Amino acid sequence: MFEVIGERINTSRKLVQVAVAERNADYIIDDVKKQQEAGANFIDVNAGARIGHEEEDMRWLLDTIQPVCTIPLALDSPDPAILEMAFSMVEKTPMINSISLEKERFDAMMPFLKGKACKVIALCMDDAGMPESSEDILGRAKTLVKELNTIGIPTANIYVDPLVQPISTDSNKGLMVLDAVRAIKAEHPEVHITGGLSNISYGLPQRHIINRTFVTLMMDAGMDSAIIDPLDKKIMATIRTADMLIGNDQFCMNYLKGVRSGAIES
Amino acid sequence: MFEVIGERINTSRKLVQVAVAERNADYIIDDVKKQQEAGANFIDVNAGARIGHEEEDMRWLLDTIQPVCTIPLALDSPDPAILEMAFSMVEKTPMINSISLEKERFDAMMPFLKGKACKVIALCMDDAGMPESSEDILGRAKTLVKELNTIGIPTANIYVDPLVQPISTDSNKGLMVLDAVRAIKAEHPEVHITGGLSNISYGLPQRHIINRTFVTLMMDAGMDSAIIDPLDKKIMATIRTADMLIGNDQFCMNYLKGVRSGAIES
Repeated sequence: MFEVIGERINTSRKLVQVAVAERNADYIIDDVKKQQEAGANFIDVNAGARIGHEEEDMRWLLDTIQPVCTIPLALDSPDPAILEMAFSMVEKTPMINSISLEKERFDAMMPFLKGKACKVIALCMDDAGMPESSEDILGRAKTLVKELNTIGIPTANIYVDPLVQPISTDSNKGLMVLDAVRAIKAEHPEVHITGGLSNISYGLPQRHIINRTFVTLMMDAGMDSAIIDPLDKKIMATIRTADMLIGNDQFCMNYLKGVRSGAIES
Repeated sequence: MFEVIGERINTSRKLVQVAVAERNADYIIDDVKKQQEAGANFIDVNAGARIGHEEEDMRWLLDTIQPVCTIPLALDSPDPAILEMAFSMVEKTPMINSISLEKERFDAMMPFLKGKACKVIALCMDDAGMPESSEDILGRAKTLVKELNTIGIPTANIYVDPLVQPISTDSNKGLMVLDAVRAIKAEHPEVHITGGLSNISYGLPQRHIINRTFVTLMMDAGMDSAIIDPLDKKIMATIRTADMLIGNDQFCMNYLKGVRSGAIES
């Protein structure tokens, strides 16, 4: 089953930042409920944008969200101290967003993750920057899986983010990440593949059609999760449709449910 | 490059049948021009629906179409006598639509095709009916390629149609044909894969989203041609977008051209 990580509760989004600053719980609760109803499997929570307020904002967000939230959270911060606090507050096994191979982040995150019961997003980023070939992405993914395994995170709890890059800068960026996803899944069938999608269309017009065509290709390659806005009806409808077409929807039940609820329109 | 076989000139379509019966050349010419402008690579011509009139209708259609047509034709008939007449009339190397493994059709088509300079659509159909597994599709495709090779049709001129079947009857029908396309391309990298697409969504609501998501998956698997209505903007936009994402559009030139001309909208 494809897993949607709902990205909306992020203080870098203007309206969320205002709601958090004003401690407007109704706004946050309403947004979380909408994401759940739209089919999110995780609610990402990022309180990083109000400098100096991340800890109190994260604490307030978790206190506000958890009473109405029936799905697990993705705790989104580069700071292990914030994550440690958040981890102690959550009621369901969370996802941690994220570790990477950048030395500073890696060295800070590994001790935090060690022995924890959690899922984790592993970014194929290192100190050299973005990956430059599918072999490069595969190599970084293998290192991340190996390192995370050594501290007790099983492969099935790892969500590799291969880092989608804009096709406007290089026509091969699409193929590069698609090939990488296939190679990672061939190497580690149990690992999950996740990530943002909209970078693919950066710099090009009519981005929606690129994004939804791309998610279809990525799902065919093996992507089984994405960090997206679950209220984006078009991308959600495409994901449900592709999931049916690649054999994950017996008797087309989820597709038909989506059509009946109005979530899937042509 | 993806090749679109424009399916509109078919007397089973009501308005075309009326135009052919009335010898309304303007209607036919206008339709052919529109298909070309929309990006068709072949114009399919099928005059089979007016029983007893196929030969004269095909002759009139070819006389009408060829003066304005800058792309090759796909001659669409099960009758070798009609095809022989049509073949003698065409000015550009045509596609023949089609041969299959059904004994009667196969035995009639092989002598016609022998030694001809043409492309040919090869349907994975035999006297047992539609294929029932991806291995079944692959087996039929291999037989068709082998037989056509023996009469001088090179693999690169063969367009295998794996026969898309409705996913509403069996949730595995999507995966079945996708796996078959990958297997056929692995066995015969030079062969083309074509076919109709809309059967996939037969019996389900909101068919457009299924059809365009499916063509994306099929292109990823190796389909490089389809028999479609080039005036269906949504499917054409998806094809151009997917072609860019799988690396067939250097500098995104075709995509950007499509957006500028209004052919690609989100």
